[in-house]
Amino acid sequence: MKNILGREIPECIQGYGEVKPFKGAFESLGEVRKRAVKFESSFPEKQKVLCSIKDTLEKCGIKDGMTISFHHHLRNGDYVLNMVLEEISKMGVKDIKVAASSIFPIHEPLVEYMKKGIVTGIYANYISGPVAEAISGGQLKNPAIMHTHGGRARAIESGDLTIDIAFIAAPTCDTYGNINAVLGKSACGSLGYAIPDAQYAEKTVAITDNLVSYPACPIEISQEYIDYVVQVESIGDAKGIVSGTTKITKDPVGLKIAKMTSKVIEASGLLKDGFSFQTGAGGTSLAVAAYVKELMQKNKIKGSFAAGGITGYMVEMFEEGLFDAIFDVQCFDLKAVESYRDNKKHQGMSASMYGNPHNKGAVVNNLDVMILGATEIDVDFNVNVTTGSSGMIMGGSGGHSDTAAGAKLAIVVTQLIKGRLPIVVDRVTTVTTPGETIDVLVTERGIAVNPLRKDLMEKLGKTNLPIMSIETLKEIAENMTGVPEKIELVDEVVAVVEYRDGTVIDVVRKIRD
Amino acid sequence: MKNILGREIPECIQGYGEVKPFKGAFESLGEVRKRAVKFESSFPEKQKVLCSIKDTLEKCGIKDGMTISFHHHLRNGDYVLNMVLEEISKMGVKDIKVAASSIFPIHEPLVEYMKKGIVTGIYANYISGPVAEAISGGQLKNPAIMHTHGGRARAIESGDLTIDIAFIAAPTCDTYGNINAVLGKSACGSLGYAIPDAQYAEKTVAITDNLVSYPACPIEISQEYIDYVVQVESIGDAKGIVSGTTKITKDPVGLKIAKMTSKVIEASGLLKDGFSFQTGAGGTSLAVAAYVKELMQKNKIKGSFAAGGITGYMVEMFEEGLFDAIFDVQCFDLKAVESYRDNKKHQGMSASMYGNPHNKGAVVNNLDVMILGATEIDVDFNVNVTTGSSGMIMGGSGGHSDTAAGAKLAIVVTQLIKGRLPIVVDRVTTVTTPGETIDVLVTERGIAVNPLRKDLMEKLGKTNLPIMSIETLKEIAENMTGVPEKIELVDEVVAVVEYRDGTVIDVVRKIRD
Repeated sequence: MKNILGREIPECIQGYGEVKPFKGAFESLGEVRKRAVKFESSFPEKQKVLCSIKDTLEKCGIKDGMTISFHHHLRNGDYVLNMVLEEISKMGVKDIKVAASSIFPIHEPLVEYMKKGIVTGIYANYISGPVAEAISGGQLKNPAIMHTHGGRARAIESGDLTIDIAFIAAPTCDTYGNINAVLGKSACGSLGYAIPDAQYAEKTVAITDNLVSYPACPIEISQEYIDYVVQVESIGDAKGIVSGTTKITKDPVGLKIAKMTSKVIEASGLLKDGFSFQTGAGGTSLAVAAYVKELMQKNKIKGSFAAGGITGYMVEMFEEGLFDAIFDVQCFDLKAVESYRDNKKHQGMSASMYGNPHNKGAVVNNLDVMILGATEIDVDFNVNVTTGSSGMIMGGSGGHSDTAAGAKLAIVVTQLIKGRLPIVVDRVTTVTTPGETIDVLVTERGIAVNPLRKDLMEKLGKTNLPIMSIETLKEIAENMTGVPEKIELVDEVVAVVEYRDGTVIDVVRKIRD
Repeated sequence: MKNILGREIPECIQGYGEVKPFKGAFESLGEVRKRAVKFESSFPEKQKVLCSIKDTLEKCGIKDGMTISFHHHLRNGDYVLNMVLEEISKMGVKDIKVAASSIFPIHEPLVEYMKKGIVTGIYANYISGPVAEAISGGQLKNPAIMHTHGGRARAIESGDLTIDIAFIAAPTCDTYGNINAVLGKSACGSLGYAIPDAQYAEKTVAITDNLVSYPACPIEISQEYIDYVVQVESIGDAKGIVSGTTKITKDPVGLKIAKMTSKVIEASGLLKDGFSFQTGAGGTSLAVAAYVKELMQKNKIKGSFAAGGITGYMVEMFEEGLFDAIFDVQCFDLKAVESYRDNKKHQGMSASMYGNPHNKGAVVNNLDVMILGATEIDVDFNVNVTTGSSGMIMGGSGGHSDTAAGAKLAIVVTQLIKGRLPIVVDRVTTVTTPGETIDVLVTERGIAVNPLRKDLMEKLGKTNLPIMSIETLKEIAENMTGVPEKIELVDEVVAVVEYRDGTVIDVVRKIRD
């Protein structure tokens, strides 16, 4: 069958089941239900601290076929996922489903577990490195299921994704399971992505390299949700967890795009008192923030909040009084960790509060402007950040689809051509985010407004910005690079891309050997 | 039938249903389940602010028979419950069940609504004043259901108590429903008791007298849980909300009891580094804290935490470094509110985290010493804090049963005689807290140790404290007052006392006119 975006999707996918096709970004809203969690209540004298990861697995009743979960605040410095799977592998358990909010190159050992049938399923919002390549090559028994950050929270809360055992990487944990991530050698700040796991898993284990006496205030994840605690030498490599600094691009093309983007924001009329803003940690995104900052200073604008994964650059804007508050689901650098620790208006948020479409209102709904990336964008404004031009998985939505759906102005910023290939195409290889939720595309050669946004078209038409149709941008690119050859993929589905509401927006097919 | 404490309880109570009899304080632990909450998810453009309480009731679909909930952080200064019921009354809705965490004299208007059949059921953890008298007099159609603070959280989370509409008194609220209670003219600090209501009610309304622009950081209750917001002139009378100061008793009998209690604590061996402590806001309880403070200072003891409803006195001990942290479910005075606002180790906790027996471990489980009151205590150490000696409702468990069950050393402190009546009796009028969870009784005439605590008996036997059997204490009292006459009550059950696990520990019967 074809879904509403014209993507060809099987009605039933082996190892996934029946497909609920994507029907539009806001079609699933209305009455929803959370799952009834079943768990063991604790006797007052319960001792939660166990001696080893193996002990926690045994106490939690690990067995073939279970789903275990992880979160990615330690990013490419995370040791926890690998440590737990090494124990599972030694115990002879198999057919495990790994629900990790994101998977990075450091998780390469998963590839061997996939080949051996120890790991047969993966749920993630973002996958890069050897695991992504192995999935694209058909090495995982069942198709990987790719969520958005908010969609993962929704799936966990609703029971679409039931977690048997959640493992929480805990930079600081007390003997009764209270966790914070603002203290300890592996301090990573907000633990937003781990909160649905802790609240909805049947069993939850805290793995810490900083076991402290009770209570570990300020508590980010409460003892109410933790069954067991285990101490290890190290939960991660500090160098991989937080970068020392995040830097604005020096590339003139990136700066040009950023400057143009700031002018789009200004022309939109949203840049006024109460302004709210989110951007990623990439060099061009930060450059947009820098130009926005100049405009805010010049016009004495007092914004309401910045949100998302938070960088030191956003903290600087906050500390200068340009934003009244920060909503933080994940800290990208040390400055962000420190601010989150020390400032009560640097507010933590769970993945659900951040972007879950099935609650009473996520933070993304209050965003004025969101700056997004793209590996491809098609003439219907559908964006791909899941696969590269070869069809290989190299990312995933993360918060892309969530913020695009919520923000009043979702802007994709990208160079028109990357690696000698046009970024604007007829049909993206994979749809991550539907075009109806993207408002503007800014490239160094011109700016395209989604025809659905007539109001915005009118406003931008009054400026001297180079506004043109997205088809024109595609032609400009193709005139420079030629029309790229169509890639050929095998029919086999290796990953299912779920939109934030759990419907299937696209599938990823196996790449040819 | 008789339950395990020998209390005569009907097998089925009209207006309540089938009775699950109390079987022991820890008999219900093990596998439990939370309810599946059903609610409406929000479209991104949803506007939550409505113009009047009436509008919120209409939008929430108020109708006959519904259960609506309130929390008691505004105590005897609360206007919210009365305002909402006044609107409901005007709308002609009837047969409403009111689930208020506590009910105070200010809620007197409820009596008229009870008489008119507008309110036909009440759930509360504590009831004092005209509403208590009216219930005892048989004016409420169905028996009131009396919970503990932790038991109410359990009932809400499990679905034993399903709330149709929760009303949150919000000292500060933003336009999208984020709430904090550390700012605004009605600032009351922690909102611990309201958290289960917000999380598990089908509809939730924030009623605020300080509507602010988004976001109202630091957020105590998240936008994820709030359907509507309404602004009113005032949510409460500041004088009734927080008292300016809480004071230690000057009564020599109270001071003597407090001094003896501190010696019991010292002799128990618990008063060492890591010590944790909870006490109420009464004069004698605070005097115990003062003596404990002296001992801690003298012996250079560094405690781990103080918990509960928090007074300025506890904050002083915390600020002097005698405790590492505070767990706060409710602030009793302005000093507590300020500390909660400014100090990250002054940690908020929900009612569930505080005392719910059906989670993975409540804070009460980590208490070393709990200081409790009593209106009666019987020779089996069962405590009554629900009814007076006339049988009239004048209180309720609050956190009494929760902390007694969790604490390593639960001490009841009371004068042996009050109002010319002995406090130690053969059988308490109503059992609030089972004797198996009470360890020691301290009176000015002597100290009785629960025979279940042989270890403690041995330790206290080595001191020069006046240790005696509880029967001896009863005799001493009766020699002074005579044996009190048995009160005569009508058979009709006017309130059901649920233990924290939802079993029925006792019933309250109608008093004679």
